[in-house]
Amino acid sequence: MNIPNLDLPRVVIIGCGFAGLKLAKTINSKHYQIVLLDKNNFHTFQPLMYQVASSGLEPDSIVYPVRKVFKGKKNFHFRMAAVQGIDTENKEILTTIGSLEYDYLVIATGAISNFFGMKNMEKYAFSMKSLVESLDLRSVILQNFEKSLNTSDLKERESLMSFVIVGAGATGVELAGALAELKKHILPKDYPDLDIRIMQIHIIEAADRVLSNMSMEASTKSKKFLKDMGINIWLNTVVRDYDGTTVSTDKNEFKTKTLIWSAGVKGAPIKGLNARLTRDNRIIVDEFNRVTGYKHIFALGDVACIESEQNGNGHAMLASVAGQQGLHLGKNLNSILKSQEMTPFHYNDRGTMATIGRNRAVVDLSFVKFGGMFAWFVWMFLHLLLLVDFRNRLIVFANWCWSYFNYDKGVRLIVRNVKRAD
Amino acid sequence: MNIPNLDLPRVVIIGCGFAGLKLAKTINSKHYQIVLLDKNNFHTFQPLMYQVASSGLEPDSIVYPVRKVFKGKKNFHFRMAAVQGIDTENKEILTTIGSLEYDYLVIATGAISNFFGMKNMEKYAFSMKSLVESLDLRSVILQNFEKSLNTSDLKERESLMSFVIVGAGATGVELAGALAELKKHILPKDYPDLDIRIMQIHIIEAADRVLSNMSMEASTKSKKFLKDMGINIWLNTVVRDYDGTTVSTDKNEFKTKTLIWSAGVKGAPIKGLNARLTRDNRIIVDEFNRVTGYKHIFALGDVACIESEQNGNGHAMLASVAGQQGLHLGKNLNSILKSQEMTPFHYNDRGTMATIGRNRAVVDLSFVKFGGMFAWFVWMFLHLLLLVDFRNRLIVFANWCWSYFNYDKGVRLIVRNVKRAD
Repeated sequence: MNIPNLDLPRVVIIGCGFAGLKLAKTINSKHYQIVLLDKNNFHTFQPLMYQVASSGLEPDSIVYPVRKVFKGKKNFHFRMAAVQGIDTENKEILTTIGSLEYDYLVIATGAISNFFGMKNMEKYAFSMKSLVESLDLRSVILQNFEKSLNTSDLKERESLMSFVIVGAGATGVELAGALAELKKHILPKDYPDLDIRIMQIHIIEAADRVLSNMSMEASTKSKKFLKDMGINIWLNTVVRDYDGTTVSTDKNEFKTKTLIWSAGVKGAPIKGLNARLTRDNRIIVDEFNRVTGYKHIFALGDVACIESEQNGNGHAMLASVAGQQGLHLGKNLNSILKSQEMTPFHYNDRGTMATIGRNRAVVDLSFVKFGGMFAWFVWMFLHLLLLVDFRNRLIVFANWCWSYFNYDKGVRLIVRNVKRAD
Repeated sequence: MNIPNLDLPRVVIIGCGFAGLKLAKTINSKHYQIVLLDKNNFHTFQPLMYQVASSGLEPDSIVYPVRKVFKGKKNFHFRMAAVQGIDTENKEILTTIGSLEYDYLVIATGAISNFFGMKNMEKYAFSMKSLVESLDLRSVILQNFEKSLNTSDLKERESLMSFVIVGAGATGVELAGALAELKKHILPKDYPDLDIRIMQIHIIEAADRVLSNMSMEASTKSKKFLKDMGINIWLNTVVRDYDGTTVSTDKNEFKTKTLIWSAGVKGAPIKGLNARLTRDNRIIVDEFNRVTGYKHIFALGDVACIESEQNGNGHAMLASVAGQQGLHLGKNLNSILKSQEMTPFHYNDRGTMATIGRNRAVVDLSFVKFGGMFAWFVWMFLHLLLLVDFRNRLIVFANWCWSYFNYDKGVRLIVRNVKRAD
């Protein structure tokens, strides 16, 4: 790889999600050379991915070019590449654009969908773990309605217009809400030839409540919101299989052409690392995010798991955890230079929230839990604040205002012709 | 095809470009059933396609969902389908979603790139005739810079960073200008590791001036603008071949990985029509846009050619001609119902313009020709007015203001991994 050799220790960061981005921003590049690698040339604001899938926002609103973030930062090098493995003996990584030596290596590769070994599910289900997947899902949803127009077979049409979401975590619940809003405000106008009442949205959840990682209040309130919006909720129900047409669970069956998987993720570690992994493939790290057994290798965010008595099986796989770990490791690396001790990571839980639709959100803070219109405004305000830069904020805000006053979503473009697996 | 049978004459329109869109809007659907077909579910504002290719605008700014345009219009049916042929005997069209009978058929299928039989060119050149092609070109341009970082071979790097545009019509000139602005304002910041001075932009043109369909004043002025921006102009030069690496012309050779073809288009007629075609594949129609030999089949826009003494080889293939023909035929069809005579089409030439860059545009009106900053503002104002709806205008305007004051283009995302032909 074409990276200049300097008299500075080189930190190689793999992945430009919330952890990698924050870390690269924090490290003092007067004293370190930073090499940031990612398969894409952009950072993705994952919490709003479901908005892309449901035609609410365009990709440019939730992604941001990495090179633009680090404009002017010295001793910083971004390379678009996929990492193929590590050679820890020679302190070297192997990538699609050649190999590179590191002094410090940070693995921030995030998470991928976890289908728990269900091969069929992996083949037929859609998910929203990347921008490309979200765009594909959007095209499929719209293509389904186009296809519904062309069939006289009612069963076929029902199957095309039925959407089954597996997993009632934030992603599942938010997508369900967005689909319900499409059904109510957009689709009847776009498809006057179709009886949109046929459209069904189902959420299947193995646990006994929706948003099971939030408070009981949030679960109860969001369940009510979902029901009010006409979404069918199936709790205590475990999905067994999906053949592209029929979803089978331990209780019943659903006919659908579109199953969206949001029931679980697992870490995406890299090859060649001899580390202990959790059951869901996360790399076990100490309280400094250092990979057990290695002095100069760290892991951050979704792919890392700090096991401890306080947090049991590690922190939740959330953007806020990843961002804080990135910031923390950056400070620790800066401290090392001043011969200071590293400090252990502590997660500062500022609360969680989810939005189900217009005026319908739930917010859990340590001291108060609330839901409804105010929660929705809080959700919107915070997400705007968190978006990477001003331009994105402005455009997302304009889009949201437009949708709010017009009951109209952005642009419903089919820009990909998505073929199903068969 | 699933279209209700009504007691109304059915007008089937193939293609939702400027002609098809305007026609469908104009036809009185109390008295006609309208079926509009297109391969995409959106209308594309083609004159701004080069902005998508050069990362200036995102797709959602220049495309607009067809269903949204015709929201609430009765007896109107849009279907996303590709037309495979016509059976004029049975007054029926064949499409990817079944066949359909028509009473009136309107062919508004537009134009595709014309490589004049050069097979190699067709294989290796990029063009901008569709949104997908423009997005591919954008990804390729950005991928070239990413690849330039990874090579130590200077020749290879020069070839990656050199862009050859064939054809100095509006599309070619506008893209060249946009690339020059990327070179000046964006790329040096995005790629501090690269010597951006290596980047070369060439325009090759067979005629003896750029913008040869505009006035001499416009040609002279835009040539000066292009030169000022560092673009290499090769007039009176005919391209012979391109093998993916070397462009050969009748005078010299260019090494480049990226050749953009904007030197010619041809009509995209459909199979089964027994019509006279021009040398560039346009369907010859009479002054009512009726296809010679058919009473109920019309052709509009780029795919149609009204041969006459006044306009020689037909009107220019421009959005404004297409739009006016759509409007005119719509009025004629409405007249038929009132047993009125159809009127012949006359093109109302309101002028042409092209923009080369920030503050650099040329405008030709019948009574005055001018260029420079004022022309640029006129260009921008008119294009905003012409964009289909208010939301697009607002977002495009916000983007342009942002670029104007920040010397910064939109988001430079590589969302497609474009593989070259080989």
